Amino acid sequence: MIVTRRYKFSASHRLHVPQLSDSENRQLFGKCNYPHGHGHDYVLEVSVRGPVDSATGRVLNIRALDRHVRDKVVDIFDHRDMNHDISDFAALVPTTENISTVVDKRLREGWERTFGDCKLVRIRIQETRRNTFELNTQ
Amino acid sequence: MIVTRRYKFSASHRLHVPQLSDSENRQLFGKCNYPHGHGHDYVLEVSVRGPVDSATGRVLNIRALDRHVRDKVVDIFDHRDMNHDISDFAALVPTTENISTVVDKRLREGWERTFGDCKLVRIRIQETRRNTFELNTQ
Amino acid sequence: MIVTRRYKFSASHRLHVPQLSDSENRQLFGKCNYPHGHGHDYVLEVSVRGPVDSATGRVLNIRALDRHVRDKVVDIFDHRDMNHDISDFAALVPTTENISTVVDKRLREGWERTFGDCKLVRIRIQETRRNTFELNTQ
Amino acid sequence: MIVTRRYKFSASHRLHVPQLSDSENRQLFGKCNYPHGHGHDYVLEVSVRGPVDSATGRVLNIRALDRHVRDKVVDIFDHRDMNHDISDFAALVPTTENISTVVDKRLREGWERTFGDCKLVRIRIQETRRNTFELNTQ
Amino acid sequence: MIVTRRYKFSASHRLHVPQLSDSENRQLFGKCNYPHGHGHDYVLEVSVRGPVDSATGRVLNIRALDRHVRDKVVDIFDHRDMNHDISDFAALVPTTENISTVVDKRLREGWERTFGDCKLVRIRIQETRRNTFELNTQ
Amino acid sequence: MIVTRRYKFSASHRLHVPQLSDSENRQLFGKCNYPHGHGHDYVLEVSVRGPVDSATGRVLNIRALDRHVRDKVVDIFDHRDMNHDISDFAALVPTTENISTVVDKRLREGWERTFGDCKLVRIRIQETRRNTFELNTQ
Repeated sequence: MIVTRRYKFSASHRLHVPQLSDSENRQLFGKCNYPHGHGHDYVLEVSVRGPVDSATGRVLNIRALDRHVRDKVVDIFDHRDMNHDISDFAALVPTTENISTVVDKRLREGWERTFGDCKLVRIRIQETRRNTFELNTQ
Repeated sequence: MIVTRRYKFSASHRLHVPQLSDSENRQLFGKCNYPHGHGHDYVLEVSVRGPVDSATGRVLNIRALDRHVRDKVVDIFDHRDMNHDISDFAALVPTTENISTVVDKRLREGWERTFGDCKLVRIRIQETRRNTFELNTQ
Repeated sequence: MIVTRRYKFSASHRLHVPQLSDSENRQLFGKCNYPHGHGHDYVLEVSVRGPVDSATGRVLNIRALDRHVRDKVVDIFDHRDMNHDISDFAALVPTTENISTVVDKRLREGWERTFGDCKLVRIRIQETRRNTFELNTQ
Repeated sequence: MIVTRRYKFSASHRLHVPQLSDSENRQLFGKCNYPHGHGHDYVLEVSVRGPVDSATGRVLNIRALDRHVRDKVVDIFDHRDMNHDISDFAALVPTTENISTVVDKRLREGWERTFGDCKLVRIRIQETRRNTFELNTQ
Repeated sequence: MIVTRRYKFSASHRLHVPQLSDSENRQLFGKCNYPHGHGHDYVLEVSVRGPVDSATGRVLNIRALDRHVRDKVVDIFDHRDMNHDISDFAALVPTTENISTVVDKRLREGWERTFGDCKLVRIRIQETRRNTFELNTQ
Repeated sequence: MIVTRRYKFSASHRLHVPQLSDSENRQLFGKCNYPHGHGHDYVLEVSVRGPVDSATGRVLNIRALDRHVRDKVVDIFDHRDMNHDISDFAALVPTTENISTVVDKRLREGWERTFGDCKLVRIRIQETRRNTFELNTQ
């Protein structure tokens, strides 16, 4: 059984790689390279696979999952500027690909201690309705 | 080719395990344990995998699928209280995990007789926009 | 300027008028009359009209609105059975029309004390995506 | 007949009033006051009222409306930081209330020359699914 | 109290005015003028205003409304080509403006006989998520 | 990492197999067999799997993907009648199953030349919110 839970955070970012020239950056990232940044309402889906506990009828305690995702990700990212406020992006351009990798790594910190047999099998980040990014370790 | 079709039903339930104490139940299920229950508009997605018939251009007869899903699930669950009205939950707490297992089992009754080579590969139940549960036998 | 804010609550209800016969009730309410009730994920939109404060750029303090709506409505209705748990429906059938009137009346209690010049001009309750009910005092 | 057309832009902002102290700003705007800003995917709805032209069956030329809204608003706001990039907010805090007033004023520039009898009767800006702001001159 | 109910129909159309030249048609309607037509999934919202019946808690019998809308509109339009199949468009270009006027006129046939005091106060047709058309007689 | 991008096109079609009798066609396709066709707003999701480029933080250039999908599919299908305008359906009934196969084949033309290591792993076409069709070569 796979349980998927959905979270939201609003954040700003600017896509700019210092090693590249201004025109390469503009060529590569288009409007996402504008100097003062812009923002999105990101949707994060976290999927967990595990057996259903026969007593409680649950795969995992959803409030424990909420607490973990809030502590590791949502409270860090929400209403923040990723380039300035989140140290993971000090030397990493905050494309949604990199955001996904960072979110995945953060969620795996302390995962087994808290969730035991329930495996984190997929994270999916929707940047806008047009773009979704998925890390799948099913 | 995988065909996914979407159905809805509105139902009420209460999460309560008689073997546990009141405070354990409250601790485990939170507001979902309130004594008189509450309800949701469930979304059920049924996914079928099969080859495309070269004459008709279809994987399966969608009206036959609708009839099957209606007979086995939607007409049983829609506008019902799962704890009182659906015998599968006489001794089973109607978490969406358990609802998914029950729906999956009900859909498999008589499946092969009706759909032959088309396999039921996934059911997904969305309890609210925040929570989705998936049984995947792909 | 009109500000509209959106809230959700999940609740169950049964539509049944004791003064009518069983067959009249079934005729009038269809599946909504099933004896043990069913539920929905209601969406409540609260619209407020007022001038924009030139210092803060806001019509009203949205967190104060959230607190008011939570205290008067969401915390009362969410995860509850309206027929059993909410006294307003002791002798009133919980159709979404009547729910709207009750919600409107509850929101107006203490409104002026809290929100001064900002008028409550519309509440809208979506029962399902197919049905919306609106009280408009614009 | 009222025609409503929907546009999107992604932008960042920070809510901060220089005349207020830091703690007043934090009290007033909460997370929206974080120093480096954050962003949203705004949805702008523009509503126009006019008679249906009996020859063409149209109220107005929608491509002309698109061009006007793009020139006056979307191309100015999209992927920009409103505090830094848009001069209207040099001395005006970019709450969605003020954004709405600015967008409305910008859309009215040259409106009559382009659209003649068709009146701009409403603009509506959705900051997130939870918050909508509306200027109505119907 | 205003009750709004939502219906859907899928239909095809071509925008072409025979009195205009081919290049004027192409200029006026763009891709909507392509010779063999195209289609949309239209969403129709019907809004009715009336008092709440104190016995039943309802403004109107929704199943009666469904029957009326189905008979007058949905069964006529759904899965049809409006230019070829619906006589109202024999000499009228099926823009959504004209579709709205036709739908409104059709819904008003026999309205008072069926719904008495409940007034049809608004119809709204969404052609796509970007375009909505509204006739308001509130 | 899997990147999914979403496109839309509006098109009309008629489901009719010339080798079958009229009543077999009506039996098989229901309203979709009405002689003059009807239409939908199709949603196409294209999923690509590849490594994240460590310099740019991107899996692929999304504007290159947009150009490819526009050239191969969206500009061909949008606002067209599939039976009359698209040669792939000269002898193939345009069910969404067959549309998916055609879209997949078209997208694979020249794919490797343009996208190198990034694999096209899934296309998904949503005919309406109720029906989705998926080709998965993950």
